[in-house]
Amino acid sequence: MALGLSYSGTSYCGWQSQPGGCGVQDHLERALGQFLGSAPPRTACAGRTDARVHALGQVVHFDSPLQREAQSWVRGVNAFLPRDMAVQWARTGLSPAFDARRSAFQRRYRYVLRHHPVRPALDEGRVGWTHRPLDLDRLRAAAQTLLGEHDFSAFRSSECQARSPVKTLHAIDIERHGDYVVFDLRANAFLHHMVRNIVGSLLAVGNGSKSLSWLADVLASRDRRLAAPTFMPDGLYFLGPDYPAEFGLPSPPDHIGLLF
Amino acid sequence: MALGLSYSGTSYCGWQSQPGGCGVQDHLERALGQFLGSAPPRTACAGRTDARVHALGQVVHFDSPLQREAQSWVRGVNAFLPRDMAVQWARTGLSPAFDARRSAFQRRYRYVLRHHPVRPALDEGRVGWTHRPLDLDRLRAAAQTLLGEHDFSAFRSSECQARSPVKTLHAIDIERHGDYVVFDLRANAFLHHMVRNIVGSLLAVGNGSKSLSWLADVLASRDRRLAAPTFMPDGLYFLGPDYPAEFGLPSPPDHIGLLF
Repeated sequence: MALGLSYSGTSYCGWQSQPGGCGVQDHLERALGQFLGSAPPRTACAGRTDARVHALGQVVHFDSPLQREAQSWVRGVNAFLPRDMAVQWARTGLSPAFDARRSAFQRRYRYVLRHHPVRPALDEGRVGWTHRPLDLDRLRAAAQTLLGEHDFSAFRSSECQARSPVKTLHAIDIERHGDYVVFDLRANAFLHHMVRNIVGSLLAVGNGSKSLSWLADVLASRDRRLAAPTFMPDGLYFLGPDYPAEFGLPSPPDHIGLLF
Repeated sequence: MALGLSYSGTSYCGWQSQPGGCGVQDHLERALGQFLGSAPPRTACAGRTDARVHALGQVVHFDSPLQREAQSWVRGVNAFLPRDMAVQWARTGLSPAFDARRSAFQRRYRYVLRHHPVRPALDEGRVGWTHRPLDLDRLRAAAQTLLGEHDFSAFRSSECQARSPVKTLHAIDIERHGDYVVFDLRANAFLHHMVRNIVGSLLAVGNGSKSLSWLADVLASRDRRLAAPTFMPDGLYFLGPDYPAEFGLPSPPDHIGLLF
């Protein structure tokens, strides 16, 4: 069966289960075990988020020994989850062919950047931050350089476990909303640190410290040492995966939630 | 001199200085002392927020032995503040008549309510929550009942230290934005717990469990026991005070910050 899960990444060491139990997966599996009154089932997810990275529409699948109604899963598991994690939907009776990771044909990430002379306070941990000048036209032009199928080794962490560094970046949309600049990225899959490395390098072009051709050269080089440093995780949100319509699962949420 | 201050209330026991040092005031005064290299100055603020209540445009005044440029205050004090607090602006050379509390002729508060079957996760601590039905027309009609000058004793905590329970409520604007309902309140001043008590009672009318005339009766009774329970602090934001234009201070911010 499958669950849609939202969480703040601030207090966790990332999605992946860890011996110390600090992973989002550890908390979810413990809550599932408590709800089921059984040994915690082993889960697999659509996108393994890093420490301090948030998720809106993480999708998780696992084998359940128990039949329950969808709403009972949502309410029941949420009763055992920490306050900054919540199951949003549950889907039982899925095709056995469904796999949260392998069935996804696209992932969506959003990066929210505070662009202001003063660092974040109320939105600390929820947004990245820069006080340097930013030219949105340059940012967008730089983003165009990266679209399509490429070997993204230049934007890949040395710890990345993906089989291939070749991914297809479908879109990078960049919009300003008041003091915030929002980056929306869609790709068939992302390498480890790929969004944060791309955002860091786009900002280097957007603030004028690097040229457009520099970014094209970095991509072509496939050399991680040439790209900008990995940008801070705080503003990164995994919106969720897209699956073929035949599975009948909800689309990733488009709104992170809002503070007025 | 005066500072504009934003903070998340989640980790603090409220504005007011406490022996254990858990107040926002304690952290601000400590940072001011570190910046000045002197004993921490004693500060006074425009609105003493409660535990877990946030502020966007809190205004603070104090006597400084030191002359510094405004931008130097902002950057310098922020270097010593916790990550979820930041000075937004500084104003030196103010009239000696200025007093952050007494000079304010109006205060603005905002309450952000998540209205959704599933409890908050990513926005945990930043929003109130209800899953019950809400009729916005009823909410707005109820709010009208409370406008103007009244004895608000029915919405006043027993710990309130205000000299008089008579306050003038200038406006309660209520808007829906997707899964959120946002309450904007303006009054010359607010009693302790007044916004949370008002929101709790408005919701009782809005979800149909109480009638419009019930709310009018509660107000007229001046009896705290008749109003709804104090609503959760998590969604409450002190936007800030308004001062006479002669002081030349910034207006309260209108945007809490946003997550897309």
